[in-house]
Amino acid sequence: MNTRNAYALRARTATGTRPAAAAVAAGTPLARPLPAVGGGAAAPAGASSALGSHALTDRAANARLAYCEESVKGRFDAIVPALQAIAGLPRDADFPERAQALAQARLGYALPESVLASAWIAGPDLRALFAHCTFGALRAAIAQFTQDLLAQRETARDASNFFLDCGFHAVDISPCADGRLKGLLRYILRLPLSSFTWHKAYAGALFDIETDVRHWMAAELRRYREGVPSTADANTRYLKVAVYHISGSAPGQEGCAAHGSNEHRAIDAALERLNQFRQAIENSFCCGAGTDLLLIGVDTDTDAIRIHTPDAEGALNAYRYVDNAQVFRDTQGLSADQARLAVHEAIRAAAATAGWGAGTGEPHEGMRRLIANLLINNLSQIDYVQALYDGCYPDVGHAERYISVGDGFEEVQLRNISYYSHLHTVEEGAAHLDVGIKIFKGLNLKRGLPIPVAVHYRYDSQVPGARERTIEKVRRVAAAIGARYPDLSGQGLLICQLSVQDRPAGSPLELVDGGTL
Amino acid sequence: MNTRNAYALRARTATGTRPAAAAVAAGTPLARPLPAVGGGAAAPAGASSALGSHALTDRAANARLAYCEESVKGRFDAIVPALQAIAGLPRDADFPERAQALAQARLGYALPESVLASAWIAGPDLRALFAHCTFGALRAAIAQFTQDLLAQRETARDASNFFLDCGFHAVDISPCADGRLKGLLRYILRLPLSSFTWHKAYAGALFDIETDVRHWMAAELRRYREGVPSTADANTRYLKVAVYHISGSAPGQEGCAAHGSNEHRAIDAALERLNQFRQAIENSFCCGAGTDLLLIGVDTDTDAIRIHTPDAEGALNAYRYVDNAQVFRDTQGLSADQARLAVHEAIRAAAATAGWGAGTGEPHEGMRRLIANLLINNLSQIDYVQALYDGCYPDVGHAERYISVGDGFEEVQLRNISYYSHLHTVEEGAAHLDVGIKIFKGLNLKRGLPIPVAVHYRYDSQVPGARERTIEKVRRVAAAIGARYPDLSGQGLLICQLSVQDRPAGSPLELVDGGTL
Repeated sequence: MNTRNAYALRARTATGTRPAAAAVAAGTPLARPLPAVGGGAAAPAGASSALGSHALTDRAANARLAYCEESVKGRFDAIVPALQAIAGLPRDADFPERAQALAQARLGYALPESVLASAWIAGPDLRALFAHCTFGALRAAIAQFTQDLLAQRETARDASNFFLDCGFHAVDISPCADGRLKGLLRYILRLPLSSFTWHKAYAGALFDIETDVRHWMAAELRRYREGVPSTADANTRYLKVAVYHISGSAPGQEGCAAHGSNEHRAIDAALERLNQFRQAIENSFCCGAGTDLLLIGVDTDTDAIRIHTPDAEGALNAYRYVDNAQVFRDTQGLSADQARLAVHEAIRAAAATAGWGAGTGEPHEGMRRLIANLLINNLSQIDYVQALYDGCYPDVGHAERYISVGDGFEEVQLRNISYYSHLHTVEEGAAHLDVGIKIFKGLNLKRGLPIPVAVHYRYDSQVPGARERTIEKVRRVAAAIGARYPDLSGQGLLICQLSVQDRPAGSPLELVDGGTL
Repeated sequence: MNTRNAYALRARTATGTRPAAAAVAAGTPLARPLPAVGGGAAAPAGASSALGSHALTDRAANARLAYCEESVKGRFDAIVPALQAIAGLPRDADFPERAQALAQARLGYALPESVLASAWIAGPDLRALFAHCTFGALRAAIAQFTQDLLAQRETARDASNFFLDCGFHAVDISPCADGRLKGLLRYILRLPLSSFTWHKAYAGALFDIETDVRHWMAAELRRYREGVPSTADANTRYLKVAVYHISGSAPGQEGCAAHGSNEHRAIDAALERLNQFRQAIENSFCCGAGTDLLLIGVDTDTDAIRIHTPDAEGALNAYRYVDNAQVFRDTQGLSADQARLAVHEAIRAAAATAGWGAGTGEPHEGMRRLIANLLINNLSQIDYVQALYDGCYPDVGHAERYISVGDGFEEVQLRNISYYSHLHTVEEGAAHLDVGIKIFKGLNLKRGLPIPVAVHYRYDSQVPGARERTIEKVRRVAAAIGARYPDLSGQGLLICQLSVQDRPAGSPLELVDGGTL
């Protein structure tokens, strides 16, 4: 197979620091010197107060996340100004050299020599350069997140143990594929990635039941054969979580596109899918096939969550939930202990909901502890958005940087970084892909920029031949994308990067040749 | 969903019996009166001696299988002569009525009224009628095989128990998708369908390792959770079988197309895949993940098998096998007991192969019993082909009646009945489908007849919503087939039937509207 290991943790050339971000970083022992992100990128508003004001806010984490958000987004934002500067250079014999120096200084990496060398004929191919730089920024982001992930191994173990203490041997979470939920685990719920057995996004959170039944089987088999993470006779459960989203400021326009920005439809569809999953397990594997369900809603303007609390029998309800934005408001100014108590009180109050939201009582103790933990974690994120963006993101709608096709880069956890289309074939995923192309017609084509598409699949190196088959798959899917949008790809307005990766979280990215420029 | 339960065990109007087949049927208590198969179909040559001459031949089974083969193929063969007769009818006001009567008399079912009613304009649409009749014959075949399958439930249980006695708790068999292996289980190996945990055909027997690992997991989980068919601590194994094929009379032309009719390539590829499967299980599930492997070759001219015998460590070898054609010749004229002894002796002799085929000794006792059983079963089939076709099928090459796309009709077990393309999307299976279309250009288009394509998937009714999703899938795949061959489908030269079916063997076929004419 024709591949190369083109992934490397590139040391970025630091050419300066930016005061606002430096102030953020300085507040925490985890602070690292800020790498250059190039000119033109605006620092997040109010960055200096990013530490947060709520008693339960994890200020160190907020500072680290602000640094991460700024540096990753900064790399993408630096691309257009840098290319504009390069476009303005005189196209003489020194052009390639000068362009290269400019790229190194402002972006931190080189541009493809061949594109620069032929620039004297009809100018530099700026579309090709834009795609090259977008994928470069993406790979830098992957490197940064991966490094972070590896450093957090202990936290991940702690989280797994916490889940087990709560009575869950596996947690399978399916958010909507919307780009605004891309930071769900790391930012919104503040959970380390690898503590989750599975994490896969689907349009409208409409996860695939057949796939999830297989995940359930794999988790069960592991318990029976290896006693990991709990033995088969331990009374632990498989937790399936679905995450939908709404937009508080523009509920009818900026909600979930898959459900026509209709909150009720989004909730009902997620609830139906969750109940179908539990039913499928019970029908196929009879008694004792205990699964717990949880439904979470995210307001993508503020990152505040609401958690639909199961009743004593595990049943969920559209009208019974804890609204964490309300909890945040109610607990501001309280001490940490008082605030914690208030969170637990809110869960109890939700269980006592009357009318349409009425249930059979409180969920089991482990579930209550889990919910309290998620709510408290999310308070830090509400505070983060409050401090950095005055409580509401400036990009309420779409502002994705690239389209992610295939298994996606699970390491890259950042809001609005990509539009994600999880698919195995374009034939099956065409409708979802069309939506992505439509979004990027507005975001990129309108400005004359091409649409960068990162086609990425993971393989299991323990299965002989899996890598070769996955590389074939990446090529097949990329070819099918080109065939579906012949006008765009013919004009160089749709540019793919092809890559594969071994399954364990943090495995190196391997570029597949023939995909990028 | 817009479907109808159009499947019914149609009582076929018996208008006469055919002497040769009646003689076959008379020799056995299982004989049933022959349904009319219409004029024009030739009775198999030498049908009256189909009982077989070898001491180990199961004559009753041979008679039943000959009846089945003749009646099923007869239904397909009756179509063209009947339509020719209909084409010759005067196209006056009585045409629809007369055509309908002729169809009922010679085919046993009605033709679509709408096609006959508009015949006065430009003649009857014979392509549409041909497809209608082909699918009618297919559905009748499914009905016949299903009835037989349900009657054989006890035999299936016996076979499963036999496998378990031999030390196998699951048997997963992957033959090549070639139409000439379509009768593998029922004719060549004489095994009841439902005794197999899994049975799926792939071009060149190149089964999908990821799918099979999932099957392995499902079988393991069932043992751990339910103790079915053996408990997890019982020392039983998962048996994976691959089946390749050759053509004794035209080895370089009529062998396996997926391997360029190259016997060595076919064997090496199957061996590699089998070993990869075992490796994948061992790597992913560590110790104790015992799997046994078996490789079988079929000469599609004579249906004689060769079984590659594992050595004492379970290793297979291209050059170590028992050639059952040889065993058949060597044991002719012997008593049943002598012949049985000779079979066991042949297995011992294979284990003692020297040179390239040398191994570490005999396989374990259960494996030896299984191999002996398969060889003895196959002796009946060699005798069957000997008696009915003088030892070599007249259709050495392709003579399929329709293209089967999707999960296929596993109940329909008959040589050369269909070209089978197992796929989930046309995007993935395009190459394989192209081969099928090419074959049918020679078989049907050359004669002016359209290509009938039966798109069929199974669903699991225990999983909520699975039926609806499968119906959507059938429609998607049929649309993709139409899109891939627009010239053919535009001219009515490629006609699809769409259907779904619940998972348990023998479940009724459900036609999906909008697919057929």
